[in-house]
Amino acid sequence: MKFLAHINVMPKAELLDPQGKVVVKNLPNVGIEGVTDVRIGKHITIAVEAPTEDDAYEKVDKACSKLLANLIMEDYDFVLEEE
Amino acid sequence: MKFLAHINVMPKAELLDPQGKVVVKNLPNVGIEGVTDVRIGKHITIAVEAPTEDDAYEKVDKACSKLLANLIMEDYDFVLEEE
Repeated sequence: MKFLAHINVMPKAELLDPQGKVVVKNLPNVGIEGVTDVRIGKHITIAVEAPTEDDAYEKVDKACSKLLANLIMEDYDFVLEEE
Repeated sequence: MKFLAHINVMPKAELLDPQGKVVVKNLPNVGIEGVTDVRIGKHITIAVEAPTEDDAYEKVDKACSKLLANLIMEDYDFVLEEE
C-alpha cells in the first residue's frame, strides 16, 4: 500500500523564532498591517510504501524523530493519507 | 477579529527538490525502508487581526505572494481559522 504523509515541523512554542520575528517586522514595509505573530517551520511530504497503515505510521514517526525534526528545539505532527 | 493562518510553501512539483532527495537517500541509513519520495518546504503560521475574514484572507495572500513564497520556484496554499 502507498501512503502520503504530510508532516509539520515547528519550533517549540516556548522558543523564540527569530526568522518569524523578522517577517513580522518587515510585513508593514510591503504594505501589510495587522500581523501580530509569525512562526516558521518546515512542511515535509513523504511518500511511503508499507504493508499496513500502522506500519506506515511507524516509519513516518521514526523518520521524523530520527532525521527530520530536532526534538530539542522542534515539535512535529503529521497526517497520513492512503494514495 | 483575530485569525490564525496555516500556510504551506512547497517547491513546485515540476522542480527537483535536492534537500528531499538527500533525505530519501539517507533514510535507509537510519533503518527506515520504503520511502520513495520526500519534498521539503516551509510551514508558516501567521496571527493576523482584521475586521473581516475576507480582509484577513487578502492580507495573508498578499504576505505569501510578496514576502513568504518565491513564486518562480514555489507554490503556496493556506487555511484560515478564527481564534
